[in-house]
Amino acid sequence: MLRTLHNGDVNAAHISETVTLVGWVARRRDHGGVAFLDLRDASGVVQVVVREEEDFAALRNEFVLQVTGTVERRPAGNENPALASGEVEVIASTVTVLNAAGPLPFQMDAHQEVGEEARLRHRYLDLRREGPQKALRLRSEANRVARELLHAERFTEIETPTLTRSTPEGARDFLVPARLAPGSWYALPQSPQLFKQLLQVGGFERYYQIARCYRDEDFRADRQPEFTQLDIEASFVDQEDVIGWSEELIRRLWALIDVEIDTPIPHITYREAMARYGTDKPDLRFGLELTELTEYFAETPFRVFQSPYVGAVVMPGGASQPRRTLDAWQEWAKQRGAKGLAYVLVGEDGELSGPVAKNISESEKAGLAEAVGANPGDCIFFGAGEVTASRGLLGAARVEIAETVGLIDHAAWSFVWVVDAPMFEPADEATAAGDVAVGSGAWTAVHHAFTAPKPEFADSFDVDPGAALANAYDLVCNGNEIAGGSLRVHRQDVQERIFEVMGIGEEEAREKFGFLLDAFQFGAPPHGGIAFGWDRVVALLAGEESIREVIAFPKSGGGFDPLTAAPAPITTQQRREAGVDAKPEPAPGEGTQGAAKQPVDES
Amino acid sequence: MLRTLHNGDVNAAHISETVTLVGWVARRRDHGGVAFLDLRDASGVVQVVVREEEDFAALRNEFVLQVTGTVERRPAGNENPALASGEVEVIASTVTVLNAAGPLPFQMDAHQEVGEEARLRHRYLDLRREGPQKALRLRSEANRVARELLHAERFTEIETPTLTRSTPEGARDFLVPARLAPGSWYALPQSPQLFKQLLQVGGFERYYQIARCYRDEDFRADRQPEFTQLDIEASFVDQEDVIGWSEELIRRLWALIDVEIDTPIPHITYREAMARYGTDKPDLRFGLELTELTEYFAETPFRVFQSPYVGAVVMPGGASQPRRTLDAWQEWAKQRGAKGLAYVLVGEDGELSGPVAKNISESEKAGLAEAVGANPGDCIFFGAGEVTASRGLLGAARVEIAETVGLIDHAAWSFVWVVDAPMFEPADEATAAGDVAVGSGAWTAVHHAFTAPKPEFADSFDVDPGAALANAYDLVCNGNEIAGGSLRVHRQDVQERIFEVMGIGEEEAREKFGFLLDAFQFGAPPHGGIAFGWDRVVALLAGEESIREVIAFPKSGGGFDPLTAAPAPITTQQRREAGVDAKPEPAPGEGTQGAAKQPVDES
Repeated sequence: MLRTLHNGDVNAAHISETVTLVGWVARRRDHGGVAFLDLRDASGVVQVVVREEEDFAALRNEFVLQVTGTVERRPAGNENPALASGEVEVIASTVTVLNAAGPLPFQMDAHQEVGEEARLRHRYLDLRREGPQKALRLRSEANRVARELLHAERFTEIETPTLTRSTPEGARDFLVPARLAPGSWYALPQSPQLFKQLLQVGGFERYYQIARCYRDEDFRADRQPEFTQLDIEASFVDQEDVIGWSEELIRRLWALIDVEIDTPIPHITYREAMARYGTDKPDLRFGLELTELTEYFAETPFRVFQSPYVGAVVMPGGASQPRRTLDAWQEWAKQRGAKGLAYVLVGEDGELSGPVAKNISESEKAGLAEAVGANPGDCIFFGAGEVTASRGLLGAARVEIAETVGLIDHAAWSFVWVVDAPMFEPADEATAAGDVAVGSGAWTAVHHAFTAPKPEFADSFDVDPGAALANAYDLVCNGNEIAGGSLRVHRQDVQERIFEVMGIGEEEAREKFGFLLDAFQFGAPPHGGIAFGWDRVVALLAGEESIREVIAFPKSGGGFDPLTAAPAPITTQQRREAGVDAKPEPAPGEGTQGAAKQPVDES
Repeated sequence: MLRTLHNGDVNAAHISETVTLVGWVARRRDHGGVAFLDLRDASGVVQVVVREEEDFAALRNEFVLQVTGTVERRPAGNENPALASGEVEVIASTVTVLNAAGPLPFQMDAHQEVGEEARLRHRYLDLRREGPQKALRLRSEANRVARELLHAERFTEIETPTLTRSTPEGARDFLVPARLAPGSWYALPQSPQLFKQLLQVGGFERYYQIARCYRDEDFRADRQPEFTQLDIEASFVDQEDVIGWSEELIRRLWALIDVEIDTPIPHITYREAMARYGTDKPDLRFGLELTELTEYFAETPFRVFQSPYVGAVVMPGGASQPRRTLDAWQEWAKQRGAKGLAYVLVGEDGELSGPVAKNISESEKAGLAEAVGANPGDCIFFGAGEVTASRGLLGAARVEIAETVGLIDHAAWSFVWVVDAPMFEPADEATAAGDVAVGSGAWTAVHHAFTAPKPEFADSFDVDPGAALANAYDLVCNGNEIAGGSLRVHRQDVQERIFEVMGIGEEEAREKFGFLLDAFQFGAPPHGGIAFGWDRVVALLAGEESIREVIAFPKSGGGFDPLTAAPAPITTQQRREAGVDAKPEPAPGEGTQGAAKQPVDES
C-alpha cells in the first residue's frame, strides 16, 4: 500500500504522527514561500503544507502525489469545519510525484458547468468530480441494499445468458453473428423474462439478478441501448407478496438518502389513472386532475367537441398568459401529434374568452368553470377526440402546467402502484403510441404475453379481450414508472390461448416459445415477479434528471460512445471470420424451424 | 403467499398446528389405501399423508400441490433422521393440484445418470435435481461472500459497458451490428480491462464487478462463449495488497464448504514452475517433479537427446506397464503434437530396458536412475527438443501419471501464486501454443499489454524484452489458473514503449487505445488488480469437473444452446434492419479512423 491512511480519515487523533498519504492535487495556494495543497483521494481531502519550493514548484492540479509528513493542528482560526480533516494539516517532509497531469480539458471543480460531450469524451476525468463520484457510489450502495434484503428473504442470485435466442418482446433485438454456426445469430436479451420463468419451473422459487438488458430502439431521450434492471421472480406468491418485498426495498433504498417512505404505498387502478391523470404513470406530487366533459358537451354545437371523449385540465392563473404563450401551447400540442390545444380563459370577472368560448352554447359556458373547478383568472385546456390520445394530451399538459406554474414540490416523493391494467390493447393503438405490437392479431399485450389474467377473467379473456384485466402491478414514482411486474401464466393451455388472442399462431408459438410451452407441461409452479428499472431508480435517488449520470460509461445520442468511439467499422477479416455473410439457413417462418434440427456437438 | 411454512422448516415444534404447504410430488407410496407423498420445495421435503383416494389417485411425480393439513408426530419407528422434518408428517385435509405434470423425459432422482444433451434440453427439469440446485445456490453464496469482503474493504461495485469497441486481447470479439450507425459494429468485451483502468484514472480507487465477459474462441473443452469473472482493480496498491485481499477471499469462499485454507499461500516463480512442473499452472497436490537432464546428456550419442533441452518425469511402478499401454502413451503424446514419448523401464533388478536404453551410453545408463530419482520398477519418460514444448509435454505427462497411479488426493486443496512471469514471449511461440499474438512484433505480451514491468526492468524491458519480468501474479488451485492479475502501466511513455515492443505502431495504438493513452496524461494513479475466473472457482467449490454445472443455462459444444436452440437464423427483415449489409465505412487500418469523425448526436 502506498499510503498509511486515507485522506478523509486524517483527524486530530493523528496529531504528531508521521503519515503517508496519496492523492490528487485538487488545489494549490502559495503563500509566503509555502504551498498549501488540497490533497484529494476517494475518501476526502486533507491540507498538505509544502515548505520546499523545489517540492512544489512543478505541481499542478491533478498531479498524483505520495506525501509523507507529520499531522499537526492547524493554526487557530485556520480550521475548516467543512472538511472531516479540517482541524489538522500535514506538514510534508517528502513529496513524490507518482504521475504528472497535463493541462486539463476542463476543471474538476463541481461548480463549473461542462458540456456533456466533453464530459463523456473525457469520462475518466469527469468521474473524478464530486457529482459522478457520489452518484456511482450511491449506485453501489443501492445494489448492496437490494441484495441484502433479497438474501434475507431467501432469494438466490442467478445469472442468465446474454447470448440467447431472439424472442420479440416489444422492441428490436441486438444481434450477434455466431461464427461457429455461420448464418445463425444470437440475440442479446431484452430482459431475462423467459429464463426467470424457467428458473421457477426449475424449482428455485426465489430468484433475483441485477441484469444487463438490451433494446435496439430508435433514439428516445434518456434511453440507453444497454440498461440494467433488478429482476425478481418467485413461486407460490400473490401480488401482495411481490408488492411487500418491493415496498421494503423502496423503504431501504430511500433510507440511503435519509428519506422515510411511508408504506403501504397507495394503489390506483389503471383505469382510474387514465381517467384522472391521462397516463398510466401519474405524477401525484400535485393535483390538477383531468375532468371528463363528454357528457357535459353531449349536445354541443361545437364540432370539435362532438367526439368520443372531451376532457379538460385547468391551469391556475393561466388566463393572464400572453397570446404568444397561448400560441406556444398550440405548437407544443402539435409536436405531440395533436391538432392543437383548445382553451378557454376565465376572466377575473368570470367571463369566458378565447376561440372556444365563441363556439360553445351559452348554457355550456355558464356551467363550465364550475364543472372543471376553474376559478377566475384560470385557463381551461381541452382535449377532444379518441379517448386514449385525448387523455394522453391532457395528461402531458397537466405535467407541463404543473412545471410552469410551480406546483411541483421537488423535494417530495410520491409513490403509487398502478394495478389492474388491461391484459390487451388494440394492436393499432399500441402501434400508434410507438410501441411494437407483438403478434399479428387485432390485440396485443399491454404488459407482455406472459402476464396472467386476474382469476375472474381466466375463462373469458379470449372471448372478450378488451374487458380482461391482468394480474399486473407497476410502481410509479413522481411520474416515472420505476418497476413493472405481474403474476405469470404457468399453464400451457392459458399461454396458448393468450398467444391466440395476439395472433401468434401455433407454429410460430412453437418456433419462438416452444421451450416455454414444453416447460409448462412438467409441473410449472404458479409464479410472478417484478423488474425495477435500476438506472432510473438510482437516478431518482441521486437527484439526477438523466440516467446517464448514474452509468459509469454511458452512450450519448444514437448509441455512440464519445470515449471509445464505439460502434466502429470492423475489418474485412473480422467480417469474414464472423460468418456475417454466410448463406443463412432458411429463417423462421420462411421454412423449417431450427430447434429440433440443430446439430448438438457435445464435448 | 400460497403457503404458511416452507417444507424444510416443518418440525416437531409445529405438532398439532394446521399448516399450508406447497411443492412438488417427489415420491408417492401407497400403503393400505393411504398415500404417502414426499412433498419437495426449495427448502426441503416433508411427508404428507393423504387418506382420500380421490385426492391422491391422479397424483404423479412432479405434480405441483398446495396441501393444507395438520402436523403430527410420525408413528414410533417411522421417523426419518435424514430429513429436517423427519420426526413429523402432515395429515392432509385439503389437496389442491396447482399444476399437473406429464410424463417426464427423465427422473429427478439424483442417483439416476442422465445424458448431458437431455439435461440441457430440459434444463428447467434438470435444475430441480439436487446437484444443480446445490451448485447454483452455492454460486449465489460465493457472490455474496465476495461482495461482503470487498464492501468492507471500501470497494465500489461499478458496471462497465458490454456494447463497446473491439480491442484485441488475445481472442476474437463477438460483434454486434449498430443499426443506428449502419456499417459500424459494437464488440462484446473480453474483459472490463480498459474500463477498470479508466475507473482508476477516474478516482474510484477500489472497483469491483462480477462481470460478464465474451470470447469468440474455437471450441475447447469446457469453454463457454460467455463467462463470468470477479473483476477487481485498485489504485495506490502493491502486489501484496492485491494478494492479501485475494487470499482473504479464498479463505472465506472455501469456508462455505467447510474447508480451512492456510494463508499466506506459497509463491513460486514462473521460471521455477516451468522448470519443475513444465507448466505455469502446476498442480501441487503431488510431487513427481521434472528433472532436467540437458547437462546429463550433453555428450550423448543418442541423436534425439542432442537437443536444447532434455528432461524426464518418473512414473512410479511404471516398468510393469504392458507394451500396449506403453504404445498408448505414444499415441497420447502424438495427440498433443509431440513425436512420441521416449521412455526407459527400470527393472526390479535395476537393469534399464526399452528402446532408449539401447541408444544411450553405458555411463549414461549407469547414473540415470539416480539422476531422476527412479526406483526399481519405475518408468522414466523423457521429453527432448525445444524447451517450452518439451517441458509442456512432460508437465502434461506428470498429471496423467498422477491420475493413473492414483497420486492425487481428491480431497486436497493446493493453492500457489505463480509470480514474476516474463513480460513478453516470442510471438511465434504464443501462436504455436494456440494463443493469439497481439501486434505484429517479434514479441507479444504473456499477460496483456497493460501489465507493468517489475521496477528493475523499467528501463531495460524494450532493450531486452526476453529478460524482462512483469509485475504479475496468477493464482493456481489444483492445477487450474483461477485468477490472474498484475500491476498495470499507468504512464503514457511506458505504455507506448510496450506497444512498440509488441509491434503495435503509433497510429494503430492511437486508433485502438487512444483513449487510454489520453487518460494517462491527466494524472493516472499507480494501480493494479486481479480477475477471478468465477465459473471455475465455483465449479471447484461445488466439486464439479465442468463449469457447465455451475451455470444456469450453459451452452453445449460449438456455443449451441439445446434449450432455446440459439443461435438461430434471423429473418430477412431483421438482417435488413440491423444494417448488417450497409456499405461499411473504411475500416481501421484501411483508411481514416473513426474516433474524431463520428457524429455526436446529443439529446
